[in-house]
Amino acid sequence: MDELKGLPEATVIHDSSDLEPFLRDESHMVGLPPLAVVKPHGPAALRELVRLAKTEGFGLVPRGAGTGKAGGCLPTPRSVVVDFSQWPGDIRVSPQDLCLSAPASAPLREVKAAAQAQGLFYPPDPNSWESCALGGTLATNAGGPNACKYGMTRHWVLAVDVLLEDGEIHTFGISSVKANAGPALSQLFIGSEGLFGFIVGATLRLIPQPREHTTLLLPVKRWEDLLDLPGRLCGDGYLPSAFEFFDPAVLAELRAHGPETARRLPGEALAILEFDERGSTSEAYLEGLLDLLGPMAEGLEIASDERQRQNIWAVRRMTSVFLKERHPKKVSEDIVVPRSRLREFFEGLDRLGCPAVTYGHLGDGNLHVNLLAAGDTEPALLERQLMDLFRLAVNLGGTLSGEHGIGLAKREAFLALGDPAQIQALRALKQAMDPCGIFNPGKVI
Amino acid sequence: MDELKGLPEATVIHDSSDLEPFLRDESHMVGLPPLAVVKPHGPAALRELVRLAKTEGFGLVPRGAGTGKAGGCLPTPRSVVVDFSQWPGDIRVSPQDLCLSAPASAPLREVKAAAQAQGLFYPPDPNSWESCALGGTLATNAGGPNACKYGMTRHWVLAVDVLLEDGEIHTFGISSVKANAGPALSQLFIGSEGLFGFIVGATLRLIPQPREHTTLLLPVKRWEDLLDLPGRLCGDGYLPSAFEFFDPAVLAELRAHGPETARRLPGEALAILEFDERGSTSEAYLEGLLDLLGPMAEGLEIASDERQRQNIWAVRRMTSVFLKERHPKKVSEDIVVPRSRLREFFEGLDRLGCPAVTYGHLGDGNLHVNLLAAGDTEPALLERQLMDLFRLAVNLGGTLSGEHGIGLAKREAFLALGDPAQIQALRALKQAMDPCGIFNPGKVI
Repeated sequence: MDELKGLPEATVIHDSSDLEPFLRDESHMVGLPPLAVVKPHGPAALRELVRLAKTEGFGLVPRGAGTGKAGGCLPTPRSVVVDFSQWPGDIRVSPQDLCLSAPASAPLREVKAAAQAQGLFYPPDPNSWESCALGGTLATNAGGPNACKYGMTRHWVLAVDVLLEDGEIHTFGISSVKANAGPALSQLFIGSEGLFGFIVGATLRLIPQPREHTTLLLPVKRWEDLLDLPGRLCGDGYLPSAFEFFDPAVLAELRAHGPETARRLPGEALAILEFDERGSTSEAYLEGLLDLLGPMAEGLEIASDERQRQNIWAVRRMTSVFLKERHPKKVSEDIVVPRSRLREFFEGLDRLGCPAVTYGHLGDGNLHVNLLAAGDTEPALLERQLMDLFRLAVNLGGTLSGEHGIGLAKREAFLALGDPAQIQALRALKQAMDPCGIFNPGKVI
Repeated sequence: MDELKGLPEATVIHDSSDLEPFLRDESHMVGLPPLAVVKPHGPAALRELVRLAKTEGFGLVPRGAGTGKAGGCLPTPRSVVVDFSQWPGDIRVSPQDLCLSAPASAPLREVKAAAQAQGLFYPPDPNSWESCALGGTLATNAGGPNACKYGMTRHWVLAVDVLLEDGEIHTFGISSVKANAGPALSQLFIGSEGLFGFIVGATLRLIPQPREHTTLLLPVKRWEDLLDLPGRLCGDGYLPSAFEFFDPAVLAELRAHGPETARRLPGEALAILEFDERGSTSEAYLEGLLDLLGPMAEGLEIASDERQRQNIWAVRRMTSVFLKERHPKKVSEDIVVPRSRLREFFEGLDRLGCPAVTYGHLGDGNLHVNLLAAGDTEPALLERQLMDLFRLAVNLGGTLSGEHGIGLAKREAFLALGDPAQIQALRALKQAMDPCGIFNPGKVI
């Protein structure tokens, strides 16, 4: 695209072989070749890009580290990818204000490490935390196991710097959790997958770094026994910082075909619980937990040092890796079902008639349902099965994405199953914030 | 207004003497007499009200318990007050899902008590928590002392039920903290003071009820010594659940004219700190705190039981009451200044040339600056002083409202000092969500 050749403050990639890596993220989707990939390193590039997008009629597709799982950063017809990996800025921690500011390009790993170096903590921990960029986690409101205690990315953002459709960068929010001068526009951009503007930087809230971790591997004889556990724990003062779940189907698969260590996993179902409070490694704390678990504690494994802790978490990691290797064409979906409806969900899942194994974050009802036979299923049938799965979650008061977002991958399902009032409101808001439709066109709605 | 006479599912108040209580909230503003006050007790009333507002061209002004401090619920020209105090619904706690649903009419006191009865906790604690209604706290994104640890109301809302401009009630969000199926529209309504629709109910997130509290009354020789303290505490693993501050001016006023107990308050400035973690009343915890405070701990008072705790908090309550009694016409403003800029703020405040005493929430930089001579100040001069105060806060990276909101009271200041891009975006969003301008017209923007 000739107009992009003189773009200031940017690296521009035109060559079609160099465009190849930008057609994919970590979803199963593939994008269309973009007109170009632009890596801006200053506001002049963005200003000019927005002007050209309007006058030449192309779309702008934001990209961080490309670790998204919903195709949100994949190029759509007649689009330019705006890759923020070269966007300048330093990670700056202010212990006095208990906050941190960073550019969208900052690796989340480095953001978390910068806080930790001051004894402070930035909680969001998506699975991709060692490889993703901060900007992507903001655009998708990233989650992770810690969300059951600490909430999602949106709960930790104090302010965002956003490219709006006027071509300029505007800041919404201040460096304090208290700010009520008008509606919080920052929240409109977090989790909106670039629909209303592109986030180029943010100020994040920090709290004390947890210094203790107690990790439990908890086998249960009946998986339903886990349903009351989060409420019973919290009612007794114990808030887990992670509460992961393995259903009977995934355990059966692991025992039958998994690695040696997996074959000995006990129970009908399995949970991993972690507590990171001050004092959570004390004897009194553990005794309280054991009292509360009562007969459920049979077979419980407790990690009391970091090596044992990593051994327990290895069960979680091994599950993902093993399933991916054994069923390379499986489809993993990221739904939410309230715990109080989980019995009905598993009954419904049985009726769908497609082999599925489930694990994920029971602490917030966010389940990763893996359709193992997806690769051998006729595409139209698979699509129907997925829609049935989403409908099941939605009808039980859940939703079709807990942490990955909608992007391209779930757009059709969202339009079919989403509340029409929500979709109508989103379209009106899109029109208000981006009347020319230049920001991430064809995504979500 | 005759059209309202046949309104279904509602109590309608027309008589001008009965309208009187609806002209005021807890701000210094007075509203105009409304066309009527409607107390809906079913969706048919809201449907018909919205239809009439559009056809007859009047505005709808939402009202909860009338405890707001920014005039957000006061009637504007040609408006009908929609008082939600009779809106039906029960408070229902789901321990299994760790959430609670309640109608807008629910007293916040009862919401918090319902959670507590199950050992669970709903953190928001605005000063009016014993008298306000849930709906008002949602519309204004209420804060309180606990916000420095737990965040604002918006951080605890999972879903909202909102009356939109189509006259229907729509639900945005689910009962889980994880929900990424499209941008979180619930966040658009929280803290937007009814601009985009009226919140009639919500689902709230719950965590374990704190079982221990340690409260410190900390006098300091130099007030600046407090500036680093939140960062030092958090860097060492201590997150206060409250961090209140009394500046030298308010202490001088208390010592000179306050009640007997106040005359002995030590130090140049004073802080109240509270910790509510598990184990925070243990000896080891307190020893750690004392180590960290070092020489600052001289004169420290520690509450180790509930009576002593209430004695310390009485200092905070007594301050508000005393100031209000001695300076009934004082004006108290609710600004935010980042701690790292607080030295500059107090220098700037001195230069404004109006006697001011300051106390408030140092844990999040939310300060209540009291202009004592406001009653004797010529109105135009007072207005200039307030604008100078707001400008000072904004120029230091703060904002003109930390927890009370904009409403009517700060509308002009917001329009003068707010970021033009923010105001432009708010107007575009307002047009998108409420094209007829029926929802709380004349407020905020």
